Amino acid sequence: MNWWLDACQKPSEAAKTQAEQRQLQLTKPTGSLSELEHVAIQLASLQGQQQPQVNFPWITIFAGDHGVMEENISAYPQAVTRQMLQNFATGGACISVIAKEYNAKLQVIDCGSVGDSYDYVGVERHCIAQGTANFAKTVAMTEAQCQAAMQLGKESVEQALSQHASIYVAGEMGIGNTCSASAVACFLLNETAEKLTGVGTGIRAEQLEHKKNIINQALALHQHDVHGDAFKALCAVGGLEIAAMTGAYIRCAQVGLPMVVDGFISTVSALLAVRLNPNVREWMFFGHQSAEYGHQRLLAELNAQPLLKLNLRLGEGSGAGASLGIIKLACSLHNHMATFAEAAVIGEKV
Amino acid sequence: MNWWLDACQKPSEAAKTQAEQRQLQLTKPTGSLSELEHVAIQLASLQGQQQPQVNFPWITIFAGDHGVMEENISAYPQAVTRQMLQNFATGGACISVIAKEYNAKLQVIDCGSVGDSYDYVGVERHCIAQGTANFAKTVAMTEAQCQAAMQLGKESVEQALSQHASIYVAGEMGIGNTCSASAVACFLLNETAEKLTGVGTGIRAEQLEHKKNIINQALALHQHDVHGDAFKALCAVGGLEIAAMTGAYIRCAQVGLPMVVDGFISTVSALLAVRLNPNVREWMFFGHQSAEYGHQRLLAELNAQPLLKLNLRLGEGSGAGASLGIIKLACSLHNHMATFAEAAVIGEKV
Repeated sequence: MNWWLDACQKPSEAAKTQAEQRQLQLTKPTGSLSELEHVAIQLASLQGQQQPQVNFPWITIFAGDHGVMEENISAYPQAVTRQMLQNFATGGACISVIAKEYNAKLQVIDCGSVGDSYDYVGVERHCIAQGTANFAKTVAMTEAQCQAAMQLGKESVEQALSQHASIYVAGEMGIGNTCSASAVACFLLNETAEKLTGVGTGIRAEQLEHKKNIINQALALHQHDVHGDAFKALCAVGGLEIAAMTGAYIRCAQVGLPMVVDGFISTVSALLAVRLNPNVREWMFFGHQSAEYGHQRLLAELNAQPLLKLNLRLGEGSGAGASLGIIKLACSLHNHMATFAEAAVIGEKV
Repeated sequence: MNWWLDACQKPSEAAKTQAEQRQLQLTKPTGSLSELEHVAIQLASLQGQQQPQVNFPWITIFAGDHGVMEENISAYPQAVTRQMLQNFATGGACISVIAKEYNAKLQVIDCGSVGDSYDYVGVERHCIAQGTANFAKTVAMTEAQCQAAMQLGKESVEQALSQHASIYVAGEMGIGNTCSASAVACFLLNETAEKLTGVGTGIRAEQLEHKKNIINQALALHQHDVHGDAFKALCAVGGLEIAAMTGAYIRCAQVGLPMVVDGFISTVSALLAVRLNPNVREWMFFGHQSAEYGHQRLLAELNAQPLLKLNLRLGEGSGAGASLGIIKLACSLHNHMATFAEAAVIGEKV
């Protein structure tokens, strides 16, 4: 049996009830902090403590290159994947700044980018493949490659756990990966490319049509083999970083580490994780609703309410990272507001 | 002439252009940080510096009681206004926790609450009136009272400026004040109570009908005198804290201090400020879209895009305060992300 089928931890009903009770006693009209209350209560339940906290967030960026780049489906050249790996590690990328803002660990894992070997300080290099194969012509990954990538996600979560991280964010980098994510989403939702393909980093209208055609062509090519199987869909048209995030999400739920899902590509991994092991869903927060076309549909499929709606479409865990500030605030309010009794404030009229 | 008609400062076009240029050079797809980019650029323009900052936010809570409480329009008793004043100052209220979270100054100004004199540490007491008069029967405030309340807002902003605050948040406390705010909004938007009255702190359905009736009755009573005049509408059915926030917002724009508007009641003050002095609008950020019915309509009238949508309906500046984290992050990203040149990352394909 594969490790990803193992059981997930169960959230604490006792901590949830205690947190709900506490919210009712805080000096505010009942329910008036709405989403901030829900976040605190869910996190209390997941962390098994009445007073939840995000003192030590852990962010891992998984990178990988995509063979489908041969088909000219992105606004950026493939070399940017590697260049951004360095930028993450040296502190110049969006997610690097966010990690500093919230005192988070930032781990950078190269699952398989195209090019010669290198030694960037702060980047953990794995070369499962020199990018995936071009899924418009063949399967993107062998089953062994896909499992190796999922294993990288699993191990990252185990590291985060051993270092007592409070919450886990997975982000991705990989030029061309919205194309791969859209193709996976089409298989999972049984849709054609029209419903789930967007402009990614910013292609123009005629290139978007081309991207949709490439995806529809790939769906036709792999449909028979995939036949509704999530793991096979991942192998056929997914990416190394998408597989790694899927593994990470599943492991989070298995070891009991709450996670925040990011945008379009991350949410495809989240949906893969939930299809492979449905109880993973309980351990997820959703950081934001991305501007990428199709993200809303994925969120609806997961019955997810994202915390932020800022029209971001950057990836690299940026929307999930930005939402850490809201989650942190939800915890501070839950833990530090006075109760009606403490403040000698009268409650609602009965 | 009244001080609130004096000219507003002009945002810096030069700083705006510099900030826009910088955003184009940061290592991310063009426009991919969307709202976070807009916030940084607007703040750069308002602060007249390419690198905006919110190192020292200033939050003032204005409190006042409402004579219309005689009509039984709230879920909470009037005594709660005063009790919450103490709770703000002793650190137990939502906005107190938010102020700590973002290293903000929290100033608490009682413009006129009902009851004996008191000496709460950390509360600046002014007694313009023992609450407003019951606007269902007479004008809520005389013109002199309304001007005195606006003056409190003006002076608060001048204090914030003299202490080099980076951004200003006004919040409010006053049991019954959604009723007053709805009535003002009806006058400003030429609507009946049905379109702009919500449950406030949480009244039940039959009490909501009663609240609407009271407001419609007041609109009929004062319509002839108000006759489309914003200041007269404020006097007729407004509140001391609503007038103080209006004065504060206008003064912010006159002295060149960016501000963040909070929820329903604050947005009524924002609309009053803009009606009295239209250029005030340029200096405003909008923190959140409240769950209070009618807030969306007010935001649309001001052509405002709120930063957060968390279904909050607490008041006391809480939504604007929560958005300080997003504004702070927008500044950090703008100031600290690497440029394409610094990181040696290739830009978009041409």
